[in-house]
Amino acid sequence: MAGKPLIMVPGPTNVPDRVLRAMLKPMISHRSEEFRRLYDGIRENIRYLFQTDGEVFVLTASGTGGVECMVNNTVNPGDRVIVPVFGLFSERLREKINLRGGEAVEIQLRYGTAPTVDHVEEALERAGRVDAIAIVYNETSTGVTVRDLPEIGRLAEERDILLLVDAVSIMGGDELPVDEWNIDLCVTGSQKCLACPPGLSLISVSPRAWEKIENTRSRPFYSDLIRMREFAMRRETPFTPAIPLFYALDEALKMIREEGLENRFRRHRVCAEAFYRALEALGLEAFPDREVRSNTVIAVKTPEDVRNSEVRRIMKERYGVVIAGGTGSFRESIFRIGCMGAISELEVLKTVEALEGALSEVGYPLKIGSGVESVRRFLHLDQ
Amino acid sequence: MAGKPLIMVPGPTNVPDRVLRAMLKPMISHRSEEFRRLYDGIRENIRYLFQTDGEVFVLTASGTGGVECMVNNTVNPGDRVIVPVFGLFSERLREKINLRGGEAVEIQLRYGTAPTVDHVEEALERAGRVDAIAIVYNETSTGVTVRDLPEIGRLAEERDILLLVDAVSIMGGDELPVDEWNIDLCVTGSQKCLACPPGLSLISVSPRAWEKIENTRSRPFYSDLIRMREFAMRRETPFTPAIPLFYALDEALKMIREEGLENRFRRHRVCAEAFYRALEALGLEAFPDREVRSNTVIAVKTPEDVRNSEVRRIMKERYGVVIAGGTGSFRESIFRIGCMGAISELEVLKTVEALEGALSEVGYPLKIGSGVESVRRFLHLDQ
Repeated sequence: MAGKPLIMVPGPTNVPDRVLRAMLKPMISHRSEEFRRLYDGIRENIRYLFQTDGEVFVLTASGTGGVECMVNNTVNPGDRVIVPVFGLFSERLREKINLRGGEAVEIQLRYGTAPTVDHVEEALERAGRVDAIAIVYNETSTGVTVRDLPEIGRLAEERDILLLVDAVSIMGGDELPVDEWNIDLCVTGSQKCLACPPGLSLISVSPRAWEKIENTRSRPFYSDLIRMREFAMRRETPFTPAIPLFYALDEALKMIREEGLENRFRRHRVCAEAFYRALEALGLEAFPDREVRSNTVIAVKTPEDVRNSEVRRIMKERYGVVIAGGTGSFRESIFRIGCMGAISELEVLKTVEALEGALSEVGYPLKIGSGVESVRRFLHLDQ
Repeated sequence: MAGKPLIMVPGPTNVPDRVLRAMLKPMISHRSEEFRRLYDGIRENIRYLFQTDGEVFVLTASGTGGVECMVNNTVNPGDRVIVPVFGLFSERLREKINLRGGEAVEIQLRYGTAPTVDHVEEALERAGRVDAIAIVYNETSTGVTVRDLPEIGRLAEERDILLLVDAVSIMGGDELPVDEWNIDLCVTGSQKCLACPPGLSLISVSPRAWEKIENTRSRPFYSDLIRMREFAMRRETPFTPAIPLFYALDEALKMIREEGLENRFRRHRVCAEAFYRALEALGLEAFPDREVRSNTVIAVKTPEDVRNSEVRRIMKERYGVVIAGGTGSFRESIFRIGCMGAISELEVLKTVEALEGALSEVGYPLKIGSGVESVRRFLHLDQ
């Protein structure tokens, strides 16, 4: 296998050369006018991406650090927080709330399904006092998107309850108008649908969330949102930011703006649909229920008598295409494909070609070319 | 002013092209063998840099995040921690301990001085039960190095008390043999003496510290050292690392290894001495007491009737050299120069030339060339 491997895991994703090369710009002081202009541009474009007029910040930390920042700035010990659990990342969200001394009011769901507004309403009824609702919008571990998020946001607003959203693996890849959907805090990572290298978290805060944050005791030091707001007024970050990653993020956000959110979401949706159709053509079954399938993480069940890790090894070594297995106990039972960021028909074709080749090699019965043919037909790529 | 500016602030520092270009390597999955090999090499070289056989980790966060990680993994609510306060960064260390619910047993010192082993011993006497000693080895805000750190380490070992060291602005620029000096947790940042871009923290943990860490309640999620140790056994990080910065760090550490620690420390020491002599030749006064002057951060008092910010503006605009003012209430009363990482006689000369030019321009009485002449003489640069 020659050349760069094609990284099709659900993050980090492939980074366009234009974004990579931006990191070569000269080092600057983070207390200089050059940095302030850089951060201005970044924050303006984050507001566009998040579709928000609220405050936005960049934290040097990967998505998990950003989600912990969201929790630790809003949850006081003893606070009751509704959290639907339907995969690894929602388990982690629950753990963060509990670590903080909050009380997670859990909605336990079958993995492969998503919480609905009815689930949340029912939990609100039984829970009594509730201080916040915390939701993973896109479960990277199961390939599930919470399609009821707008309704859940409406409910949170009606009841005047804070809504915290982990959007790490979806922001920039599917609809997420933060203000319209009444999301109070929203977090994403740089290395997923933004097609930027890993290492940064992007965070938005609604106007009404500030009172809660100001009343949160023992906020973290490094990721204190009040301090971030103070420094943002001077157009700076409180602590030394990862300058090269800020350059990359600036470029990645410019590319998003050039493409336009609608076009970007459509591109992700079309590529996801091409994946799902190809998998079906190969006789494979998507892991999640149809109506909650993600457009950014494609999760598919390992067919019987096939070794997941062996298929992935062949895909990588023979075809130079890297996809992921499942997480935790699903390691061998799910394949996961990132449909994120710089995704186009080229990546879909290469990935499906590699998958059908590898499956065939391990003896899985399929007609070679049927997956690729399905992609071509759906995307009208036939000559 | 044409060309790249020369960044002479106390971090971020100038990054060699070789380190910058390493960031262009292809994106990889952080759960791949390629990443494991990368992290292996990095961790081996961190052990060399820290002179330790203990565990070492890299956290995607800037130095402040690393220091908070050190505190939040070792300090339980109610723990009594001795902390000498002699500048902004030791104030922050105290604040982190208090935020965590610990009780900071403060040694308040005049800024420009450093704590001695006697100060710490006296604090131990008056404090009664003490769970840890936390020290900033190099105060970036005042240009002071704690020269008694080895003796303090001996004392901590005798009394069986944990020693936590913030070495953000000095590791790689001056002596710091972590094991020999009995340091239990030691943290540095990538963007100072390592000549790597900002965004990563490097952390070491001594064998005896693990018991304490295991007994720390509600450790942080993102920067949980137990989780980092678990994942390090599989040669991975718990969460998505900032891959391009890992590439850069790998290269920066290789350069340190090629140069050798002794040579690197000597280079920093010689350049610092050249700075101090030049400043003296210009009639300027170092801010710290002579015996605790840092070899990595040069702090000098603003002369009377000179506007600090105006001098720095001229240095930047006319000479392309960026130095820092003081922090907080010292903003206008101190200049701070980074003597870190890729520092050599070239940077010293350019900085001194810019400083004397700018001082002269604002009417400060000096003989143009006297600073540069002093550097040349000391470094034997005369033709």
